[in-house]
Amino acid sequence: MSYVAPLKDMLFVMNELADLAAINALPGCEDATPETVEAVLEENARFCGEVIAPLNQAGDRHPSVWKDGTVTTTPGFKEAFRAYAAAGWQGVQHPADFGGQGLPKLVATPCMEMLNSASLSFALCPLLTDGAIEALMTAGSDQQKEKFLPNFIAGKWTGTMNLTEPQAGSDLALVRTRAVPQGDGTYKISGTKIFITYGEHDMAENIIHLVLARTPDAPEGVKGISLFLVPKFLVNEDGSLGARNDAFCVSIEHKLGIKASPTAVLQFGDHGGAIGTLIGQENRGLETMFIMMNAARFAVGIQGISVAERAYQKAVAYAKDRVQSKDLEGSATAVSIIHQPDVRRMLMSMRAQIEAARALAYVGASAFDIAHHHSDEKVRDAQQAFYEFLVPIIKGWSTEMSIDVASTGLQIHGGMGFIEETGAAQYYRDARILTIYEGTTAIQANDLVGRKTVRDGGAVARGIIAAVRATESELARAATPDLKAIGVHLAAASTALEDVVAYVVANIQSDIKGVFAGSVPYLKLAGIVLCGWQMGRAALIAQAKLDAGSGDAKFYQAKIATARFFADYFLSQAGAYRSAITGGSAGVLALDESQF
Amino acid sequence: MSYVAPLKDMLFVMNELADLAAINALPGCEDATPETVEAVLEENARFCGEVIAPLNQAGDRHPSVWKDGTVTTTPGFKEAFRAYAAAGWQGVQHPADFGGQGLPKLVATPCMEMLNSASLSFALCPLLTDGAIEALMTAGSDQQKEKFLPNFIAGKWTGTMNLTEPQAGSDLALVRTRAVPQGDGTYKISGTKIFITYGEHDMAENIIHLVLARTPDAPEGVKGISLFLVPKFLVNEDGSLGARNDAFCVSIEHKLGIKASPTAVLQFGDHGGAIGTLIGQENRGLETMFIMMNAARFAVGIQGISVAERAYQKAVAYAKDRVQSKDLEGSATAVSIIHQPDVRRMLMSMRAQIEAARALAYVGASAFDIAHHHSDEKVRDAQQAFYEFLVPIIKGWSTEMSIDVASTGLQIHGGMGFIEETGAAQYYRDARILTIYEGTTAIQANDLVGRKTVRDGGAVARGIIAAVRATESELARAATPDLKAIGVHLAAASTALEDVVAYVVANIQSDIKGVFAGSVPYLKLAGIVLCGWQMGRAALIAQAKLDAGSGDAKFYQAKIATARFFADYFLSQAGAYRSAITGGSAGVLALDESQF
Repeated sequence: MSYVAPLKDMLFVMNELADLAAINALPGCEDATPETVEAVLEENARFCGEVIAPLNQAGDRHPSVWKDGTVTTTPGFKEAFRAYAAAGWQGVQHPADFGGQGLPKLVATPCMEMLNSASLSFALCPLLTDGAIEALMTAGSDQQKEKFLPNFIAGKWTGTMNLTEPQAGSDLALVRTRAVPQGDGTYKISGTKIFITYGEHDMAENIIHLVLARTPDAPEGVKGISLFLVPKFLVNEDGSLGARNDAFCVSIEHKLGIKASPTAVLQFGDHGGAIGTLIGQENRGLETMFIMMNAARFAVGIQGISVAERAYQKAVAYAKDRVQSKDLEGSATAVSIIHQPDVRRMLMSMRAQIEAARALAYVGASAFDIAHHHSDEKVRDAQQAFYEFLVPIIKGWSTEMSIDVASTGLQIHGGMGFIEETGAAQYYRDARILTIYEGTTAIQANDLVGRKTVRDGGAVARGIIAAVRATESELARAATPDLKAIGVHLAAASTALEDVVAYVVANIQSDIKGVFAGSVPYLKLAGIVLCGWQMGRAALIAQAKLDAGSGDAKFYQAKIATARFFADYFLSQAGAYRSAITGGSAGVLALDESQF
Repeated sequence: MSYVAPLKDMLFVMNELADLAAINALPGCEDATPETVEAVLEENARFCGEVIAPLNQAGDRHPSVWKDGTVTTTPGFKEAFRAYAAAGWQGVQHPADFGGQGLPKLVATPCMEMLNSASLSFALCPLLTDGAIEALMTAGSDQQKEKFLPNFIAGKWTGTMNLTEPQAGSDLALVRTRAVPQGDGTYKISGTKIFITYGEHDMAENIIHLVLARTPDAPEGVKGISLFLVPKFLVNEDGSLGARNDAFCVSIEHKLGIKASPTAVLQFGDHGGAIGTLIGQENRGLETMFIMMNAARFAVGIQGISVAERAYQKAVAYAKDRVQSKDLEGSATAVSIIHQPDVRRMLMSMRAQIEAARALAYVGASAFDIAHHHSDEKVRDAQQAFYEFLVPIIKGWSTEMSIDVASTGLQIHGGMGFIEETGAAQYYRDARILTIYEGTTAIQANDLVGRKTVRDGGAVARGIIAAVRATESELARAATPDLKAIGVHLAAASTALEDVVAYVVANIQSDIKGVFAGSVPYLKLAGIVLCGWQMGRAALIAQAKLDAGSGDAKFYQAKIATARFFADYFLSQAGAYRSAITGGSAGVLALDESQF
């Protein structure tokens, strides 16, 4: 089997760190009982492992192909998507009213992780559809919801996000696509959109494009952008498919990775105008798109964890299998390379980063669920603020680490890692998009600095650091050297984070460029501290289980060792980040353009 | 122009840090006058920029092709290699006696850097030939030298290194290829060699394979390995080409990168036995191969600098060209992204690592020249020890950084970076082999720990740290805040290195696995400190030039800012490495195999 879902770790994180029981107790989450959740995860693991995972390498070797405006996906993808839809997986986290399973995000998140481990390229189609569902749920009219949501959730139709244009990437103020009202409630859309994931394919009956465009009288900049729903095939009143709309795929990209996922250039309105309807209000498109984008950013963070996990499993298998060199402590013959200390270091580095990122992401999902279901508004608001603080970190940190982990996985394979047939190189190529799409790491860091830290004067950040401090105290009181060592590293790291938050808040007015010069290091520091915090919590719980003599001792021992590794190798970097952020901006900005 | 050689920085490093004048004063280096050196570099820069650099992307799109045992290289490569040979570039560093230019390694090194920046794939053919020349110079018989060296140096024939077999990669003890003496001074070679760079191609008249193999009575392990010379076409007494030898390319690999460079599986002796002659003595093959490998490791370190430089130049061009988002300090319209602080941070990170690695490598080349030409044996020995200490660091650190730099370059391109047509992704793929071939980073780190640190009880390491301390003192006495800040970071970092060297020496007996668990972090720490040392030296010299009002002020100011950045962002990491190395081995080694 090429991918075995890490159910044990997933369930540990869900139960012990993200408090599934508390989520299950929330109004509207009654279905998420331990038994149901375990059954859902096991079935999802089986499906992803048996049906999707075997398609991943095929997708790399036989990418989607464009011909005369149509895209043929990798052999097997169409059938797999039908099976995915038929099993109801598209609906896991969506409302039962429209045919979904209505399970919490905390349960949907491991499912998302498994699907993406099985195949990033495949999973992008459901991921984008999730975003379209989220947008319609938030801002769609009742008619739009009734017409589109059941088909999305049933996996009959899929969704896309159309933001980017050749001149408008990170900067959506530059969007030029036009939408002209026709007086009948519809608009005619015209323009070019690029980098549209699954913008054209053969896996579903219809494709529903969500498109950012400007109406004729719209103001300049981001305040003049509206969101439109533009189906590939128009939908009749009775829900049947009508005429082909004027939205055509003129080419797809030749990419470094995720090759099975078609990345389309879409041309709207070259033949008379593509017909679309407004979602929400005119000029408020970006707000809705941001809701969709936050969900998508969280999901891309999960993609980072997913591809890293897959790369890790492959590297472990190779390290156990490949015999080379004697054991340093004197075996007579060559042994498998997992006996080599540096191979161990690499595997532990992969494992520690994955487990830490998973813990933080699932805790984030749990916060999202509380923010949406808790009866107390204050609790909801606090958890929403916590979740929103985490999103850029989950997206930025998990994806940056995924590139490192995939590269380390390749390294463990030695020369074989560089040969495409081996498969390790695919993860290195696939992962490389994750720090770019749905907002580059710099865009995430801007969000963390601007909206999430400066806007409230660092209040949410300081609240989180206080929670970290509580874990530190517990670790300091613990009886074992491992827990104590983790506590020492965590204390130093959270102090560094506290200093940096203070620096950011204090200097944003007087030295805006200096602060933003350190924005990505700040995001990485926050990622290290918050991930290390979760690993510290995990180690405390694992030690308590060991002390109580309950459960799988090997698993808990490994959790503590992994947390210890994370502290030694990652939390220890916090001081360097602080130094670079608070002292390094002069060097970043010293040169003028001509000196490069 | 897609590549412009950074001659200004090269000459600064050669003259100011690597003391070209002192090299020129050595016996046998009289030709390396400032005028000659500058002329050679300028002509090499022109050749690499105009003839080789334009072939690089073609090599990626149209890799070498294998058919029926023969390999056809990328269109244009054959002609370019003829031009390379005709201009005498293969002979830059080789003896005039055999047709070379006999210039010092310090002069050959920038030439090597330029050729590799132009095309890693192309440069591998001369690189391997350099290795073969080195091996024959060291251990070849007079007859072998006369027969082969002039043809190598003239670029008529090329060389290969045949070490790896399917079961023998990092562990050469497992080599099985056999060599049976025929009683006439020749041997019949049989076996399979894999990953043979330019093992078959159409760019030269003959290919000379240097092959590790075992004679029938050889002892087990690495002490039973001999080195053989096995030409593709046998060479007659008069030097003309004779019969086709029984050494055939049965396939080439489908690789992640450096696709134009054919990576061959060679089958020796399937049709009666390949005829070879012994190089040096029986069972001493590994010693000669190590000489060749040390030269090749240094060269691969240069490859890291080269591909990083090329990626940097591309990223700078894109950052100046791509308009997106307003300036943070309030421009009315969108500006080029080089105005964004995070883009600056990324460019500075690339630039700082490249300049630092270049400085260390050229200083290493200078040490090599002194070790080979100085009249005082003590000086020779000391410089040889310094050079040998540096080789694993230059190889390991420069190649690890090249992956980071290529990845950062891709990131600066945003979504376009992920599209293959853009070209940034090629560097990310090409660079990925560099930490693997000629000994993985772990193998370099083993060398650094075992042969270079433990064997002399850390004496050479401590001597180098003492030299770093002298630079620190100068920085501490300097008048500017930048130099002082660099000095503070350098002092903390060199203390960390000192502590780690003491830890390695003290614990190697009692805790060998624990020490090797930190071997790669030790290599990286040593790289950071020694590169930071060179940047500190560079900053001092730049400041002196500025104080004197001589030369290009913009260049010297940029050098100081870049050194400052290196200190803030890289030297600051030293403490984390120390902590991981000295405190982190327990976590690395805690799990048993079943826990992975």
